[in-house]
This record gives sequence, C-alpha cells and structure tokens, in this order.
Amino acid sequence: MIFDEIVQSAIENVHGGLAAVIMGRDGISLSQFMAENAEVDIETLGIEYANLFAEIGKAAETLGSGSVQEVMLLTDQYQIVIRSINPEYFMALILAPDGNLGKGRFLLRVSIPKILAEL
Amino acid sequence: MIFDEIVQSAIENVHGGLAAVIMGRDGISLSQFMAENAEVDIETLGIEYANLFAEIGKAAETLGSGSVQEVMLLTDQYQIVIRSINPEYFMALILAPDGNLGKGRFLLRVSIPKILAEL
Repeated sequence: MIFDEIVQSAIENVHGGLAAVIMGRDGISLSQFMAENAEVDIETLGIEYANLFAEIGKAAETLGSGSVQEVMLLTDQYQIVIRSINPEYFMALILAPDGNLGKGRFLLRVSIPKILAEL
Repeated sequence: MIFDEIVQSAIENVHGGLAAVIMGRDGISLSQFMAENAEVDIETLGIEYANLFAEIGKAAETLGSGSVQEVMLLTDQYQIVIRSINPEYFMALILAPDGNLGKGRFLLRVSIPKILAEL
C-alpha cells in the first residue's frame, strides 16, 4: 500500500528516524512504520499527539493565528515533527535526539502531497 | 533590566521577528518586547501557549518522552518557538511566516543561560 511505502521511506531516509505514522485526528492510525530497535509506543504516542494537535489547533484559532501546519517538539528522548495532511489526518515523524530534524521536516513535507493524492 | 534587553535583542536580531516574551508557566509575563508594526496580542498568546506547553509537558511525561525542551508551531500567520527556561519560566519568540526560524531558535537557545544567570 502506498501509505506503508511513504512511512517506511520517510524513516529509512533520515538519520535517527525511529518511527513514522499517518494518523486520523481521532487517534486511529492509517499506516505506521518503526525502525528496527526503536522502542517507541507509536500507537500511544500518536493518540496523545492527536489530542495535542487538536488542542494546539483550537488555541491557534482562538488567537487568530490561522490553522496549524506543523508542530515540532524536542524532548529529552525524542524529536517529534507533526504535519497536517487535511482536516482529518496528520503525519508524524519521531527521531532520536541526534537525528536530522531538518531532513525529517523535509521528508514530511514532500510526503504530504503524495498522501493527499491517495486519500 | 536585563530581561528587557534579552527579549528586545532577540527580536531585533532575527529577520521577521514580531514579538518575544519571557513568561511564567502560570501565564504571567516577566518581560516582553514587540517589533514596531507587529500586531500580536502577546499577553493572550503567551497565556494560551503557557497552557499548551503545560499540556504538552504532561503528555510527554505520560509517554516517557522526558521533559519538553522546545516546541515549534507553524501556523498560517506565525512561526512560534517556545523554549523551557526552568520549571517556572519559558521564553517564546513569534516570527512572521517568512521569518528566519533557524536564527530565531538559535537566539532563543543562547538567551536561556543569560536568563538563568539572573533568575
């Protein structure tokens, strides 16, 4: 399936890529891929960040900041990039702290039109 | 006051810098600076993002991702970078959509030790 290829390709082409997921804003994943050895609970992570993305979107609307296109989070253990696909789906990439965040963002950005073409 | 100098210097040294704020996680701002012509309701923005930062922190802890160091949000109207100073304060930079996000992140990162030295 094209979605599986997209998430796999995103992880295999970025240094430090741990996991990628295409997820509905209701927290149900459409497709996901995890690097070997990656210890990421991607379902839980996806659901939590689906909620956060919704909260952030609401806050941004309240503030008149317009809709949220991309969110990046740097925590002690992960770098997380989340990008909106459409009002129903988003895609998230999870990288190691020393992973290439710039390349990750780029791969996420070029994945979106490919996903949109299939939805 | 050193805090005022830090927020002003951050905005004046980045292309597209609109506003900077050092804010308590309770939503009360310690210091803020806005570029001329910038139409940003920085108090409201700060309070909303103080809440979001708290929510994100809680989610990250739940997930065992460790503490959140930095959050970036790209909306239709702004690029927002938020960085943790300590458990009580954070600093946020708000840039125009065409502003230099990389430089903004850099300025935010180098501001933190200066702020910590004064707290």
